[in-house]
Amino acid sequence: MKKLIDSVDTLLETSLQGFTKAHADIVQLNQQPHFIYRKQAKAGKVAIISGGGSGHEPLHSGFVGYGMLDAACPGQIFTSPTPDQMMAAAEAVDGGAGVLFIVKNYAGDVMNFEMAAEFLAMPTASVLINDDVSLPKDHSIGRRGVAGTTIVEKMVGAAAEQGADLAACKALAERVNAATASMGAALTSCTVPALGHPTFSIADDEVEMGVGIHGERGRETVKLTSATDVVEQLAGHIQQELNLQAGQRVLLHVNGFGATPLLELHLVYEVAWQYLQKLGVVVERSLVGNYTTSLDMAGCSLTVTVLDDALISLWDAPVNTAALRWGC
Amino acid sequence: MKKLIDSVDTLLETSLQGFTKAHADIVQLNQQPHFIYRKQAKAGKVAIISGGGSGHEPLHSGFVGYGMLDAACPGQIFTSPTPDQMMAAAEAVDGGAGVLFIVKNYAGDVMNFEMAAEFLAMPTASVLINDDVSLPKDHSIGRRGVAGTTIVEKMVGAAAEQGADLAACKALAERVNAATASMGAALTSCTVPALGHPTFSIADDEVEMGVGIHGERGRETVKLTSATDVVEQLAGHIQQELNLQAGQRVLLHVNGFGATPLLELHLVYEVAWQYLQKLGVVVERSLVGNYTTSLDMAGCSLTVTVLDDALISLWDAPVNTAALRWGC
Repeated sequence: MKKLIDSVDTLLETSLQGFTKAHADIVQLNQQPHFIYRKQAKAGKVAIISGGGSGHEPLHSGFVGYGMLDAACPGQIFTSPTPDQMMAAAEAVDGGAGVLFIVKNYAGDVMNFEMAAEFLAMPTASVLINDDVSLPKDHSIGRRGVAGTTIVEKMVGAAAEQGADLAACKALAERVNAATASMGAALTSCTVPALGHPTFSIADDEVEMGVGIHGERGRETVKLTSATDVVEQLAGHIQQELNLQAGQRVLLHVNGFGATPLLELHLVYEVAWQYLQKLGVVVERSLVGNYTTSLDMAGCSLTVTVLDDALISLWDAPVNTAALRWGC
Repeated sequence: MKKLIDSVDTLLETSLQGFTKAHADIVQLNQQPHFIYRKQAKAGKVAIISGGGSGHEPLHSGFVGYGMLDAACPGQIFTSPTPDQMMAAAEAVDGGAGVLFIVKNYAGDVMNFEMAAEFLAMPTASVLINDDVSLPKDHSIGRRGVAGTTIVEKMVGAAAEQGADLAACKALAERVNAATASMGAALTSCTVPALGHPTFSIADDEVEMGVGIHGERGRETVKLTSATDVVEQLAGHIQQELNLQAGQRVLLHVNGFGATPLLELHLVYEVAWQYLQKLGVVVERSLVGNYTTSLDMAGCSLTVTVLDDALISLWDAPVNTAALRWGC
């Protein structure tokens, strides 16, 4: 294992310290328990909180700030945060209008956010993100939440900033989640520091299709022929899931897993854009870059969200976070 | 070689198409010869142009837009752009106040930008960026331009936007370059698509100190002990070069080479911040992320720029590009 770390035990703590200092105009760090929260809280606003295992940065800490999240609870790498983190974060950022938890669908995250909600005194609501179409809809533990989470957090964060109440924020989050589908492909596995070696092995001429964001294997290992082939397979599954029709407007998000150059991600974007154009689908908004990463995994995912005027306006609304910033 | 590409020959063209579509609100692409340029040109402003081999994205194309570059000329991967690209870009974005070329110090770039300047009818000036302190000051071909280029481009872009004339822009670029020092360390080499294999080999317990951004070897290969050890060595060289003193204010830029997780980059930032604090140096501004990459290389560089009120104000000035965006 080759990483710029001192020890597995201190990596997360030191990194959180650095993140908070580098973005001290936007966020602050709470110690014991750990959470990152907005510097400028806003009274009367629904508080939007997310969290999950670390190793996916900038998700979620990089999305804390004006117009997006009020707090993010980082677990250890690929490990759920604990209910005490979520409770302390909720108490710190509650503006009197309740708290919405945005939860990626993983058993530990779901259980711990539920437990936190149970013990909190203020009104809370939760939404499960399950945009990964590489698993069947009726999968026993449900589909995973992956890069579509960024889209939900951006749009719901904007709505909360504009004064939407807790029920409206929850309904919007569910609507965006339902309008969103993602699928990923990996060229390499990733190395979890505590494990010390790649989580799966893959040959030099293979690509892992339908991969998750925790170094788990995908739905199938196939020969790597070309970027176009990989992208068209991913886009095909997404098209089918969302039943994309000519004339529809979409947001196209190409997400890098951490070790794939921007040069390749923009090539992937071009191929996906051409695929959608052939269907008559109009790409109205775009996001290309490393947003939901999987440590040092090479590869990428496609995410498509079907848009309407309301969602476009929420996407365009001002945001000021470490990783997404415009209009501020 | 494992990459998300279709062929070595079409990679750059397809990627530029995708980049331009994904950021169509900010940039446009000129074909034959290739350059990326600002959508909204501004009459009467000094035009700021940079360029160089591709493979360092977001540098330079991701820095085209309001408050930074007017155009970027992308060569093939790790290969200089040609004079006709630079000339066509200059003619397209000239606002009547002359053109400043920001040139990283590599023989091909220097020669081709010089040739372009010679043939252009409008007033031009050039500045050489040579912030890499891993080579001695009296090195025969001079020191390389690396991640400090981003800092120069941001500050000079802001000055040009505020109406500085060509001589003032050139003087400012030289001042920022002189106030800036960088040094990098790599955990892996990178794979140039046309080559098909890593440009150098390095053992699992080694780190390449003083590495460049083109997969060339560094000044020495040493045992990898800890992130703190690597960062303190890099910071030590920078401290010596800039003769950092207690009370000085600096910008601290931690730049990822492409394959290193943000989690590690923020840890590196924290270690570098602590190092500077012990010297009594105040980190006033920060930038952490993948800005001057080297394809899929793992590792990072530190860049420090000594600040004063004028430079802080130029750094803070509004910018609206694909990769840096604030205040707009």
